[in-house]
Amino acid sequence: MTDPRPAYYPAETESGPTFSVCALVQSQDRFDRLIASFVRLGFTPDRAEFLAADNRAGNRFDGYSWQGPLLAEARGRYVIFCHDDIELIEQGHDDLLALLDDLTGRDPTWLLAGIAGGRFRPDSHSRLMLTFHISDIYGQDRRRGAMPARVETLDECFILMRRVRPVLPSTDLSGFHYYGPDLCLQAELAGGSAWAIDFHLRHHGRGSKGQSFLNCRDRFVAKYARIFPGRSLHCTTGLVTFPADAPTDSAPP
Amino acid sequence: MTDPRPAYYPAETESGPTFSVCALVQSQDRFDRLIASFVRLGFTPDRAEFLAADNRAGNRFDGYSWQGPLLAEARGRYVIFCHDDIELIEQGHDDLLALLDDLTGRDPTWLLAGIAGGRFRPDSHSRLMLTFHISDIYGQDRRRGAMPARVETLDECFILMRRVRPVLPSTDLSGFHYYGPDLCLQAELAGGSAWAIDFHLRHHGRGSKGQSFLNCRDRFVAKYARIFPGRSLHCTTGLVTFPADAPTDSAPP
Repeated sequence: MTDPRPAYYPAETESGPTFSVCALVQSQDRFDRLIASFVRLGFTPDRAEFLAADNRAGNRFDGYSWQGPLLAEARGRYVIFCHDDIELIEQGHDDLLALLDDLTGRDPTWLLAGIAGGRFRPDSHSRLMLTFHISDIYGQDRRRGAMPARVETLDECFILMRRVRPVLPSTDLSGFHYYGPDLCLQAELAGGSAWAIDFHLRHHGRGSKGQSFLNCRDRFVAKYARIFPGRSLHCTTGLVTFPADAPTDSAPP
Repeated sequence: MTDPRPAYYPAETESGPTFSVCALVQSQDRFDRLIASFVRLGFTPDRAEFLAADNRAGNRFDGYSWQGPLLAEARGRYVIFCHDDIELIEQGHDDLLALLDDLTGRDPTWLLAGIAGGRFRPDSHSRLMLTFHISDIYGQDRRRGAMPARVETLDECFILMRRVRPVLPSTDLSGFHYYGPDLCLQAELAGGSAWAIDFHLRHHGRGSKGQSFLNCRDRFVAKYARIFPGRSLHCTTGLVTFPADAPTDSAPP
């Protein structure tokens, strides 16, 4: 049988760019700034492609729904999911690749890498245990904690994964908050890890914590209290504790 | 900025075939038989592509490691992961598409569809609660249970998912058994469902239950006892019960 001709994997040669840069785009200006900064720092067309989840004319995607469709089109070895309001400032393509090679050497089981997150299952919950290196509205070149560090949550402004082993958000959550922590918990349930790496960038955004944030948090807590009763989760937006006595559906009938 | 030119989604037009048929291939003869049967029943080159995880010369992939690399290359709207020893016999492309349209109408949250599985969280565990329609070494045209049915496990001989919202196996399990149930539990943890649909095919294989099966089961049980303590899971290979008193890492320190 010669037609159809099946494709056999692993293939002899790898095709596609190194990175697929996927952004949740509300503003053309911000996205243009993002792309210009990436190109300036080595994300040239042979090494990177840019994909937008198009929310310019209204919210066609929310935080949980945009990664799947873009992942299905991405061709890069690594797929970055980021906000449209980030900007690279000093580190670029080669730095990021070196950080990922280093991470793979430390922990071949990594599934997610970001630039800011909550340390993995810390012993104490008396203060928020975060790790990051970022420039944002709160200051330039801010650092906390040693990096790289295994984390249990990641900030949504920048999260990347391997295209051959992606992690997708929960389908039973929605909204624009907590999808970074959700991705990390899905990675953990899949048996892999999430890390914060020292890739310094600027995040122009301002986190909002209105009613929609609280609604997202309630749904997030209700979901994960069944799976991780009693766990406290350190998020860049604050500490979240899953009640230990929430109803579970795991008990025998 | 015109170069690089970003791609905006959702795109105006959908490209690619309807189905990507991905097989874990040990035997060229079996794979040729599979392809011939698919083509005969409407999976023509405009509607289907065939991808092989190539184990012909030895096990380069195991049951948990082959889906990611093939998914990364697949271009179909739906991606089928199947054994190389299945053969279509009466139902084909149009039937499968109609079954999936019907399923989407019943439950838009479905993430996985297969042809044989264990009913979702049945009330009683006194006998194995399975649902299937299959021809195999145990008989022709064998049926059990009403279909479609929501299931908590699927047999690995045939499992499909949407390319825009895939489900991948655990990265902390390995071997050639239990990756169907593992996929279903990962789908459930992601908030979606798995279904057995009435797509009749022939499975030429003979399930083996040697020491490697028992080793896989032990690792599978050890993993999921932490997440679903006390749950009994109905698998096509038999009932599995997760101990209720297994150590968990979810309790507060």
